[in-house]
Amino acid sequence: MSKILYHKQLLDFTKEVFLKMGCSPAHAEVGAKALVSADLRGIDSHGVARLSGYVRLWEVGRVNATPSIKVVHETPSTAVVDGDSGLGLVVAPYAMSVAIQKAESVGTGWVSVSNSNHFGIAAHHAMKALDKDMIGIVMTNASALVAPTFSKERMLGTNPICVAIPAGIQPPFIADMATTTAANGKLEILQREGLEAPLGWIQDMGGHPSSDAHALKNGGSLLPLGGSGGGHKGYALGSVVDIFSAILSGANFGPWVPPFPAYVPMPENQPGKGIGHFFGAMRIDAFRPADDFKKDMDLWIKRFRSAEPINPQQPVLIPGDPEREMEKVRTSGGIPLHDQVWNDLLTIAEKFNIKF
Amino acid sequence: MSKILYHKQLLDFTKEVFLKMGCSPAHAEVGAKALVSADLRGIDSHGVARLSGYVRLWEVGRVNATPSIKVVHETPSTAVVDGDSGLGLVVAPYAMSVAIQKAESVGTGWVSVSNSNHFGIAAHHAMKALDKDMIGIVMTNASALVAPTFSKERMLGTNPICVAIPAGIQPPFIADMATTTAANGKLEILQREGLEAPLGWIQDMGGHPSSDAHALKNGGSLLPLGGSGGGHKGYALGSVVDIFSAILSGANFGPWVPPFPAYVPMPENQPGKGIGHFFGAMRIDAFRPADDFKKDMDLWIKRFRSAEPINPQQPVLIPGDPEREMEKVRTSGGIPLHDQVWNDLLTIAEKFNIKF
Repeated sequence: MSKILYHKQLLDFTKEVFLKMGCSPAHAEVGAKALVSADLRGIDSHGVARLSGYVRLWEVGRVNATPSIKVVHETPSTAVVDGDSGLGLVVAPYAMSVAIQKAESVGTGWVSVSNSNHFGIAAHHAMKALDKDMIGIVMTNASALVAPTFSKERMLGTNPICVAIPAGIQPPFIADMATTTAANGKLEILQREGLEAPLGWIQDMGGHPSSDAHALKNGGSLLPLGGSGGGHKGYALGSVVDIFSAILSGANFGPWVPPFPAYVPMPENQPGKGIGHFFGAMRIDAFRPADDFKKDMDLWIKRFRSAEPINPQQPVLIPGDPEREMEKVRTSGGIPLHDQVWNDLLTIAEKFNIKF
Repeated sequence: MSKILYHKQLLDFTKEVFLKMGCSPAHAEVGAKALVSADLRGIDSHGVARLSGYVRLWEVGRVNATPSIKVVHETPSTAVVDGDSGLGLVVAPYAMSVAIQKAESVGTGWVSVSNSNHFGIAAHHAMKALDKDMIGIVMTNASALVAPTFSKERMLGTNPICVAIPAGIQPPFIADMATTTAANGKLEILQREGLEAPLGWIQDMGGHPSSDAHALKNGGSLLPLGGSGGGHKGYALGSVVDIFSAILSGANFGPWVPPFPAYVPMPENQPGKGIGHFFGAMRIDAFRPADDFKKDMDLWIKRFRSAEPINPQQPVLIPGDPEREMEKVRTSGGIPLHDQVWNDLLTIAEKFNIKF
């Protein structure tokens, strides 16, 4: 960690990069906000650390900086959006806003998206529902790193599910999780620090349990949530994310999902377009008066916080607590960047002739 | 295993029991079908093994045999159903049919249910969507057996999620899973056979990892899906099921969910009514022409079946495969009953003066 930058600095820089790529000012703004929200919430693997990756995808023509994002099919409560190869960071906010509009109109809205790219952290998009007194649900597929139960072949992405639920006095419940035992970002930390991975996270290329944090680079695969105990459930959850995101929309699925690194060749015989996402919004008062719901959510949260801890120094957390704490810390104290990320940003600044 | 009965025998007997309890012929039929579908699919813990439990709930007045199940609030895509303390086996099919009707009308339907009881297996209800070319989604909360991450207190039920997705030539994808590493039924098998439980399934009353299959009876708790590796994700998933099922509807949640055994006292200061469920139906052609979707689902299923296996003798399965195989076997060969279950059924037959 050699450098600490403030949120606004990263936001302005990212916006400038997207403008230089040819994005409209509105798209540059929306996309930069989505990307940098990851750094603010402490999900370093999904923030500016990926900016150079997006730039490379644009350079090889796999990201369209001026997409015409549109609804290609709809009913009162559903839509399919074609992202026109745009940045997922820009396509996702559009699709989520369609879901929210549908929910305003008929109670819930559900949008499946094709022809998109990586959209940053799911929570950023799901949280858009909160201010409207709605529950937000976001999923995306991703390129294959995960082996289904009984297999040694990579067939699914880390396919996250995010659910954001408003409360009253309490902060909202925000669960944002890969459907693997551990996200790739956690593995990268172990790799950097030369540590072993707990069993249940990964297997080697022969399908044997492995504690080698580098096994993934050597042909191994990530294991679905549940590891050796209940991995068939993580496999099923990751599959549902894949199907909702890509088969409902006509995007690529399973082993055909485009890889994020631009140097990795595209899978052959792709059945769909780009990567797929899925967005949902449910208006609380389509079920119960929002105040009644929020009062019960507050009770739920308070009761779970007071559940008897194993270690009194480590009380029970509510999903979203760690990221919200991190956001507070980094909003005031700035965002630490790894040397490599900082150097990547300097290279991008030079490429686009941006003062930084 | 001392006795083998055919599906129709169990169905007729269960229907007769529900009639003797005072259920209408229509409710007795629907409820019996739901219950016995578990035995047919090999989920022995949720079938006629529970019939005596339902009878006891009725005897103590916690199950209403003649409920007036109704929609108490709705929008074009949502509803809240009050189950009037009816058998969940009867309330759930009603609520699922409301979800399906809403989906027919506006693309999707979402129904949260309060004031219900145990509804058998989630898959039975979710599969109702398949014939309509819809995706079915079913969740329910249940009495607390599961400790959240960092806690030794039981706060959540095994809170299952089921997703049923139609395919074309291939059989449907049906994932039906508790949000714990292992369902209670699997633990009961180990108890009967005197075997140890794998680590990650349970903890003892002090919150320490345990391999004692009886730890649950001695004040321990089940662990959320992911065990020691990713248990915070299972905790989050189980929580989402609890909130969708009970806080959207006004049912009891968390540690306040009514216990299934009638002899266990009700939790004090309950905030809601009965237990809660959540049902969803999404019309495929609200997103894409159903034939296009099914063609891609067939490709998805075929590709996953052919994923390179670790052991060539154990190919990759698609969620729903084991239950469908079991249904074939038991449809022709009958359903084996444990001595204890058989004796329970004889006791019920005697109580209600039913020839069996």
